[in-house]
Amino acid sequence: MPADPLHTVPHLTTALTGPLEQIETLLLTEQNKIETWLRAEWRITPAPLYTSVDLRNAGLKLAPVDTNLFPAGFNNLNPAFLPLCVQAMQAKIEQLCETASHILLIPEDHTRNLFYLESLATLRDIILKAGYQVRIGSLRPDLKSAESIALPSGRYVKLEPLIRRDNRVGVADYDACLVILNNDLITGVPEQLRDIEQTVVPPPGLGWSHRLKSGHFKHYNNVATEFAQLLDIDPWLINPQFRNCGELDFKNREGENCLLRNVEALLESVQKKYDEYAIDKPPFVVIKADAGTYGMGIISVSSIDEVQSLNRKQRTKMSSMKGGTSVTKVILQEGVYTFETWGQQEAVAEPVVYMVDHFVVGGFYRVHTERGINENLNAPGMYFEPLAFVEPCNTPDRSRAPDAEPNRFYAYGVIARLAMLAAARELAEHNAQ
Amino acid sequence: MPADPLHTVPHLTTALTGPLEQIETLLLTEQNKIETWLRAEWRITPAPLYTSVDLRNAGLKLAPVDTNLFPAGFNNLNPAFLPLCVQAMQAKIEQLCETASHILLIPEDHTRNLFYLESLATLRDIILKAGYQVRIGSLRPDLKSAESIALPSGRYVKLEPLIRRDNRVGVADYDACLVILNNDLITGVPEQLRDIEQTVVPPPGLGWSHRLKSGHFKHYNNVATEFAQLLDIDPWLINPQFRNCGELDFKNREGENCLLRNVEALLESVQKKYDEYAIDKPPFVVIKADAGTYGMGIISVSSIDEVQSLNRKQRTKMSSMKGGTSVTKVILQEGVYTFETWGQQEAVAEPVVYMVDHFVVGGFYRVHTERGINENLNAPGMYFEPLAFVEPCNTPDRSRAPDAEPNRFYAYGVIARLAMLAAARELAEHNAQ
Repeated sequence: MPADPLHTVPHLTTALTGPLEQIETLLLTEQNKIETWLRAEWRITPAPLYTSVDLRNAGLKLAPVDTNLFPAGFNNLNPAFLPLCVQAMQAKIEQLCETASHILLIPEDHTRNLFYLESLATLRDIILKAGYQVRIGSLRPDLKSAESIALPSGRYVKLEPLIRRDNRVGVADYDACLVILNNDLITGVPEQLRDIEQTVVPPPGLGWSHRLKSGHFKHYNNVATEFAQLLDIDPWLINPQFRNCGELDFKNREGENCLLRNVEALLESVQKKYDEYAIDKPPFVVIKADAGTYGMGIISVSSIDEVQSLNRKQRTKMSSMKGGTSVTKVILQEGVYTFETWGQQEAVAEPVVYMVDHFVVGGFYRVHTERGINENLNAPGMYFEPLAFVEPCNTPDRSRAPDAEPNRFYAYGVIARLAMLAAARELAEHNAQ
Repeated sequence: MPADPLHTVPHLTTALTGPLEQIETLLLTEQNKIETWLRAEWRITPAPLYTSVDLRNAGLKLAPVDTNLFPAGFNNLNPAFLPLCVQAMQAKIEQLCETASHILLIPEDHTRNLFYLESLATLRDIILKAGYQVRIGSLRPDLKSAESIALPSGRYVKLEPLIRRDNRVGVADYDACLVILNNDLITGVPEQLRDIEQTVVPPPGLGWSHRLKSGHFKHYNNVATEFAQLLDIDPWLINPQFRNCGELDFKNREGENCLLRNVEALLESVQKKYDEYAIDKPPFVVIKADAGTYGMGIISVSSIDEVQSLNRKQRTKMSSMKGGTSVTKVILQEGVYTFETWGQQEAVAEPVVYMVDHFVVGGFYRVHTERGINENLNAPGMYFEPLAFVEPCNTPDRSRAPDAEPNRFYAYGVIARLAMLAAARELAEHNAQ
């Protein structure tokens, strides 16, 4: 269940807010310049159907750490902003396929993850309220007939076996004009979705079987540089540094030298920035699968010794991923401290921003009481408490302080849209192939 | 100030809800058919920039009675739905002028109407939050320099004299790429706005100096007929009958015979429908200026005797309008009873629905304690209490009763969009000229 939306927003428990307040102030005063620039960018590279972006707010630095093109978690958004999702979905689908009326939604295969199924139900309801017919066609090979699953929210979600007919997909007695994919296809594009004539959004080629985090952050690096030029700021303040390795086998320690070299180089590079900004915390590096999702196989290290001393269990974890694939490529990303905490327990809180088309439609904090400020909050089996954003991200208010709620959420929405722009460039690259 | 949005919605105090519940049920079950049809219609005739529609809910009948292309009252909307307005405004302006960045807003000339100025400030804020620069260029001939007016809400609104430079309009040091008109130009299109090269929306030619209510309701009659065919219902349930007269001078009783004939014919025609639906209320007819606004000069009659016995004061009122024009053409509209009441006083409540582009963004009730169920709630000097809609109009929920709040608001949104479609056809007709 989403946390009470009347709760307050997390506090920034850091003295290092100087530069961030500068950024928040700048985003606010330069709003017109930013929005005009973003509008021009969306004309060149249209936004994906939907995107969620994990941000880290270190006070001194606000940066995206992950961009999801097949987002779940719609059930964690503030129900008050459901109308925003509905309206943005209407605008996007009209653009994608102006005569669309019947939509097929293809979900992840998890059958028992009620959190995911709640998100799926919310997504279905958004499409339904937007004025479309929608049915859910599952790729699960074990699903032989329609199955209705009761959810904790009191809703039902009905999964039907996806049926391929010639070059079209649908479910029994139902042909869709548009297919919406909510499955990141980590194990590859299934036979049933190949060479179909219907428009599929996002395209299966952007699933994790093809996409690499390093590819995304290469684009993000460009976006952050362009945006920093526009505002005349240091791009590092919004950009996590990264490096990637070639093939790597954690379990058998193959490719480890390359990994160590890169971790060391990255730590040194970040330390230089920390020195520049007089930050007295140790830098850290996050090692994660380059083609991964769900935070599986994520390790946080602040020295190469820590890499060398990874134990068998950690190595095994790194080499097994969702869907059974083994880690072969990793991305090393500059760790960004999470300096937002919530409640008396000072639980760590990480914002996730949701977008439909190029509109920011809401977000929530992942609040976790048992994690440290340099650990990943989206790890497997992780329990987090979702805390829905109390305000939308599109109502900046210059008459209030730069860190007032609507303005902080606006800042999140700007940085999240920069990450989405990087994803839009991935999409354009994919479409040009 | 808007009434507390936590208040409940008005009650329908009538036994005549049978047919309306049928309509509400139908709108809900046929939502996909309706939305698909509307989407096709917006492709043929794009929606105006913004529209407000006054509805009457008679239980047995739900119909628009007035459609405003230069709406005020944005300040009466539920602040919770401001993000919807912002998002819809973004979508619309991107469509109208994709490179727009600087916008000029041209307001009504009233200087002392704080209600209007609060609406203007809200409209300005919507455009600003949407990511545009906006300044307000006033047509007031007495405004010689910029004037900042403090508003009861604590906001300021800054009016600047509109300046014409060659074929462009702006204010001092500010050239706009897009001009948004929020002035219904009742006294005609001013010289300054003629033949300018910037895009002006809505076009000045749709001001009340050119537009006729009867022209609108002719289009609405077609829309209602088409929509009724789509759903297989009696179009009368959503369509107020009307007739219009030629030139008429109330004060000097010229053209009165024509008026009497038409009032009589209309009352008879409505009585027939009342007989058909076993409605035991007397029909009534509303006489209003065909090219008018602000509810000036509106008379409600239930017999031709009442027309003949109009006193001098009433006749004078009918022949003087906002801006000093005199009534020359009138429209006779079937009166639709207002059977929605609010609170313990059973105050009459009339819904007004707001749209930006083809999106319904909210609405409010005009609540009036001193008016009868067959009188107009938008009359000059009328005091009404705005009661913001507690829910948006785009979240119909089939799991709830057809008259549950989100579903009643959805029904309002559908009928209001039908009136907007009629306005879109006026707009297309105007653009084709």
